[in-house]
Amino acid sequence: MELSLIVAASALLYRYGNVVDKIREDGFQIDAQVYSIIEGDNPTTMAKSTGLGVIELSTLMENLQPDVVLTVADRFETMSTAIAASYMNIPLAHTQGGEVTGSIDESVRHAITKLSHLHLVTNDQSQQRVLQMGEDPDSVFITGCPSIDAIASTDMKMPVDFFENYGGTGPGLDPSRPYLVVLQHPVTTEFGQGLEQINETLSAVHTLDIQAVWLWPNIDAGSDDISKGLRMFRTRNPDAPIHFFRNFGVEDYARLIKNSACLLGNSSSGIREGAFLGVPVVNIGSRQKGRERAHNVIDVGYDRAGIEQAVRKQIAHGHYQTDMLYGDGRAGPRIAEILANAKISIQKSFFTR
Amino acid sequence: MELSLIVAASALLYRYGNVVDKIREDGFQIDAQVYSIIEGDNPTTMAKSTGLGVIELSTLMENLQPDVVLTVADRFETMSTAIAASYMNIPLAHTQGGEVTGSIDESVRHAITKLSHLHLVTNDQSQQRVLQMGEDPDSVFITGCPSIDAIASTDMKMPVDFFENYGGTGPGLDPSRPYLVVLQHPVTTEFGQGLEQINETLSAVHTLDIQAVWLWPNIDAGSDDISKGLRMFRTRNPDAPIHFFRNFGVEDYARLIKNSACLLGNSSSGIREGAFLGVPVVNIGSRQKGRERAHNVIDVGYDRAGIEQAVRKQIAHGHYQTDMLYGDGRAGPRIAEILANAKISIQKSFFTR
Amino acid sequence: MELSLIVAASALLYRYGNVVDKIREDGFQIDAQVYSIIEGDNPTTMAKSTGLGVIELSTLMENLQPDVVLTVADRFETMSTAIAASYMNIPLAHTQGGEVTGSIDESVRHAITKLSHLHLVTNDQSQQRVLQMGEDPDSVFITGCPSIDAIASTDMKMPVDFFENYGGTGPGLDPSRPYLVVLQHPVTTEFGQGLEQINETLSAVHTLDIQAVWLWPNIDAGSDDISKGLRMFRTRNPDAPIHFFRNFGVEDYARLIKNSACLLGNSSSGIREGAFLGVPVVNIGSRQKGRERAHNVIDVGYDRAGIEQAVRKQIAHGHYQTDMLYGDGRAGPRIAEILANAKISIQKSFFTR
Amino acid sequence: MELSLIVAASALLYRYGNVVDKIREDGFQIDAQVYSIIEGDNPTTMAKSTGLGVIELSTLMENLQPDVVLTVADRFETMSTAIAASYMNIPLAHTQGGEVTGSIDESVRHAITKLSHLHLVTNDQSQQRVLQMGEDPDSVFITGCPSIDAIASTDMKMPVDFFENYGGTGPGLDPSRPYLVVLQHPVTTEFGQGLEQINETLSAVHTLDIQAVWLWPNIDAGSDDISKGLRMFRTRNPDAPIHFFRNFGVEDYARLIKNSACLLGNSSSGIREGAFLGVPVVNIGSRQKGRERAHNVIDVGYDRAGIEQAVRKQIAHGHYQTDMLYGDGRAGPRIAEILANAKISIQKSFFTR
Repeated sequence: MELSLIVAASALLYRYGNVVDKIREDGFQIDAQVYSIIEGDNPTTMAKSTGLGVIELSTLMENLQPDVVLTVADRFETMSTAIAASYMNIPLAHTQGGEVTGSIDESVRHAITKLSHLHLVTNDQSQQRVLQMGEDPDSVFITGCPSIDAIASTDMKMPVDFFENYGGTGPGLDPSRPYLVVLQHPVTTEFGQGLEQINETLSAVHTLDIQAVWLWPNIDAGSDDISKGLRMFRTRNPDAPIHFFRNFGVEDYARLIKNSACLLGNSSSGIREGAFLGVPVVNIGSRQKGRERAHNVIDVGYDRAGIEQAVRKQIAHGHYQTDMLYGDGRAGPRIAEILANAKISIQKSFFTR
Repeated sequence: MELSLIVAASALLYRYGNVVDKIREDGFQIDAQVYSIIEGDNPTTMAKSTGLGVIELSTLMENLQPDVVLTVADRFETMSTAIAASYMNIPLAHTQGGEVTGSIDESVRHAITKLSHLHLVTNDQSQQRVLQMGEDPDSVFITGCPSIDAIASTDMKMPVDFFENYGGTGPGLDPSRPYLVVLQHPVTTEFGQGLEQINETLSAVHTLDIQAVWLWPNIDAGSDDISKGLRMFRTRNPDAPIHFFRNFGVEDYARLIKNSACLLGNSSSGIREGAFLGVPVVNIGSRQKGRERAHNVIDVGYDRAGIEQAVRKQIAHGHYQTDMLYGDGRAGPRIAEILANAKISIQKSFFTR
Repeated sequence: MELSLIVAASALLYRYGNVVDKIREDGFQIDAQVYSIIEGDNPTTMAKSTGLGVIELSTLMENLQPDVVLTVADRFETMSTAIAASYMNIPLAHTQGGEVTGSIDESVRHAITKLSHLHLVTNDQSQQRVLQMGEDPDSVFITGCPSIDAIASTDMKMPVDFFENYGGTGPGLDPSRPYLVVLQHPVTTEFGQGLEQINETLSAVHTLDIQAVWLWPNIDAGSDDISKGLRMFRTRNPDAPIHFFRNFGVEDYARLIKNSACLLGNSSSGIREGAFLGVPVVNIGSRQKGRERAHNVIDVGYDRAGIEQAVRKQIAHGHYQTDMLYGDGRAGPRIAEILANAKISIQKSFFTR
Repeated sequence: MELSLIVAASALLYRYGNVVDKIREDGFQIDAQVYSIIEGDNPTTMAKSTGLGVIELSTLMENLQPDVVLTVADRFETMSTAIAASYMNIPLAHTQGGEVTGSIDESVRHAITKLSHLHLVTNDQSQQRVLQMGEDPDSVFITGCPSIDAIASTDMKMPVDFFENYGGTGPGLDPSRPYLVVLQHPVTTEFGQGLEQINETLSAVHTLDIQAVWLWPNIDAGSDDISKGLRMFRTRNPDAPIHFFRNFGVEDYARLIKNSACLLGNSSSGIREGAFLGVPVVNIGSRQKGRERAHNVIDVGYDRAGIEQAVRKQIAHGHYQTDMLYGDGRAGPRIAEILANAKISIQKSFFTR
């Protein structure tokens, strides 16, 4: 099999860490790069970026003529990819189908399942939901999630100069002492409440007074509100022991959370990669609602006292055992095997159960 | 309730009968019109038109700020509408969800269901499938299809000068004598086979030698192939008793098929409106695969002999009894009632069954 | 030098003769093809197609990274190309700058000149106008137009079976007897008057009762009106000795007009290629207003009597001597030489005169 | 006359100061708002934003049906507006035509002149250049620039709490003591050199050690490089007496520069509004190359020593006399008068001189 690679959306943007450079450094050749984000970080521009993505990806697929298109999870560029491929009669393979969460991602993930020809799911429960939605049983494969592969093969030792490569802003961090990691994204379906929500988390972390690594939120609608909250906090509390970073490489991110005292926020990584790595996680709010959890997660609301208390509990507990709920680290070869051999019918049919 | 109306896609185009003019004639005020079709009539332009639709509809919804968006069935402009509304946190109401057919429409219809907040379905079977897909039972309503409303309230008498208002090309038609109606669209998932498919139908109708009303196909990928077949036939057989039309108004189309000896092709109207009107229908090929049928439909393949034979059988049978499988003509008031009163949660959840 | 080729706009469409196939047959490799026409054939869609062209060409140039972009004349896809290249700091070379005509092409052509870094003009008068507009004298080159190259190297003999390769609709044509060629495009700045205008020409040609080759108009706003006029005429006069064609190859088009008794309409080819070939031309209306003419052109208004009389006069006169007003057939090598060697400053400056 | 207002591009974005809110506060009603910026701040996204602007503005103009479209200067959204209006046969009126500068703005401004029907220029020299480019003398009017109107009617007294309304980041400012204002935008045609360029200016201002008001750059390609330079400086020199702001209202910006000891950078405001207000200006680099200057401007290169020396000279000189080179403050009524009464021919012609 031959890989064609289109890099688009936030992967090209400075404020999301120029992921495209990391892809090149990893030795991949890029067939095309496409600026497809319409600026504004709100629900309207999220929709428009989806539309622009469809237009551009259609032209590129027309010229690349792929045999199959592989797309990941539930972001708006995933939706763009799914629409382009399925209207163009190109078989569509999809990872992470059947998972449940909150946010618009929930609806989008299932809609993509209904457009996909191959479902490469993470576990039993996801498989059950994909089947319930009427998909062909012969098209659903439990492979685990490839994001676990990346971390399963990574040496988890944290170098002393870890943070020096990443710049960021804020006071120095000592990786040999306990630290928190915070990553809290906007919840699109709660657009307008982001500032209030982030302020609860900021207050809790400030009170805990443990050194913290804080990552900027993703590009979804509401991102601006959260960023504003972070900037205001920084201005008011220049001496708080919080260091802000844009982005880490996949392996370094795994090292970072693996070695942390606690990961808090609403990133899926706490629940998914965190299960495998045994990271103590405090999950805040509705964004991961319904997603299957291992034992490493405590759920709390947007509430500073609740957040603080849960973090203290997780620090007291320390690390958890590995749980393979989201994969065992061997998803990649399974997926390659399936893509190479699957018999795909372009015309989908509804399977009544 | 106050209606805002955006008219887009093929409804603005001459070759689809300038539907926008009919909307204005019916007394509706149009809030915005949007040219959103990228020319080419192929899978790539179908995808790109979807993307352009998302961009434009997002801007218009941003400025109109609707309380709820109502969208119909499974076309690519329906997908554009669904994506724009759902990313923008505007409640989305959808008719015709849960029906099964062939073509890319099949996947698109179900994907839209997974993005919708209110499901206004036509019958029990559709309701069952929407529920199977994990939708909230409180959000699914059997209303019947509003397309049946339009025809239920129409006087079905055919005026003597019926055809004179519609121009078209080909020899004169006598509405007082038996006639066929033919409407065969491209099947997007069988792109590239349209010419061959339409030639079978043309040959059958030519052999039957009964006067026929032939409608040009819709704008889906493959439309050009079918149009080419029709044009080539016309050039080779200028005297065949076939008259080609672009489009009829909704009421006139109902009169046309109601009074026909047989409707053939692959339009959903044969199965849906045809059930209510009792029209003898010969359904060709895979485009309506799986859609529930009343007794008025005979299914055949892309096969001139099979088509010819089935039409003769339907003519011999004559009209059928009304079947309310797709609605009883009172969907409109039910839908208005639901839109006015429904309690909608923007955050959707998956219902396990 | 290495050629990269992007094929877009009407060159990909069936109703404009699938020019892309001819490009491939001629042995060129196509780097990308882009469907960029928004359907509607009106001023709004002309603008929107320009915008879509900019978006798509920007992405493709981003990925192709050309050293210089060459664009031709004054169409909306030319404008798209000019905007993409100039914002992206890619040197822009432009042919046919400085010519004057009517229609929106007039303004667009000059706007493109103000965005271009190299001006490859056809003659003295064009050079003077480009210089008057404030361009750097070192950037303006009289090369002649490459469209003359193609015809200068073509054998002008007309094969007996010439028309058989081209299909089209209408009665047979005998290339050994005198025939007219008609090509009349919409005038965008007179949008809404196209039907009236074409009816005058149709009436004149009908009265002349000489066999005629009629080409469908281009894709500009108003195209639909003209096409409608042609279709209505054909229905009312199925026996008129007029044969309608979509498109000819460049060489065949040259043969066609070279061997015609008279070319009428408003195509620039009558004035430009017609000068070199000595074709008797009747130019109708304002579309070519101001363009320099050789002696082969008679100008008339939208007036059936005037058109008829002028055609009779041209037939009586017969062919004209070759005039090199638009080129001597050696533009290509001159342009290649300039592109290979020109010193280009990306920052343009206004030259006061 | 009735004003329709479309607000788009950076006027809707937080990082450019949410200008849309100021427009609303000023009592204007907004007909439509359009997110049209494709994120990336580079030459490719500048081109793509132009294209997206054309698509969206065409749809909005189609629905608003304006009698005339007024557009300002030379930005990419101005180009979008010009293309949409001119293809749609809507008369286009343009301010600031005929001025000369550096950057891509230079080419774009002149290209827009060649698309415009009414030229509302600032002074004699601009008029001469518009005429040289072949425009109809009856379409060119010296009105002065409306940007001068806004400042001519503003009370220039600086309130003591001036800076308190604007937030920003950095140490406090005392408006009663001398301060610098710095505003340096990227130069699109020197893309890639922005970081180096801004570092020279930062070093000069740091050495001068006078309190300074620094504005973030505009959205043109290269913006990211300049922002990065500013952020890096801020991190390394948290105590430098420089305060960073996003945006000021039009009147407050006039007050700010009027009362400053010196304005430095490459904004046109130093040369244009600065002439009227008599502000001592140090203009850096090529961005304003060729633009007519009053006596208030000293030009320097990207050179820390040169910048420092020129600022000291300007501070020593103090304020200049008012110069009406760019307007006398009564452009608005003149423009309204012209728009209301001008006879416009949609078909433009080239005027040979």
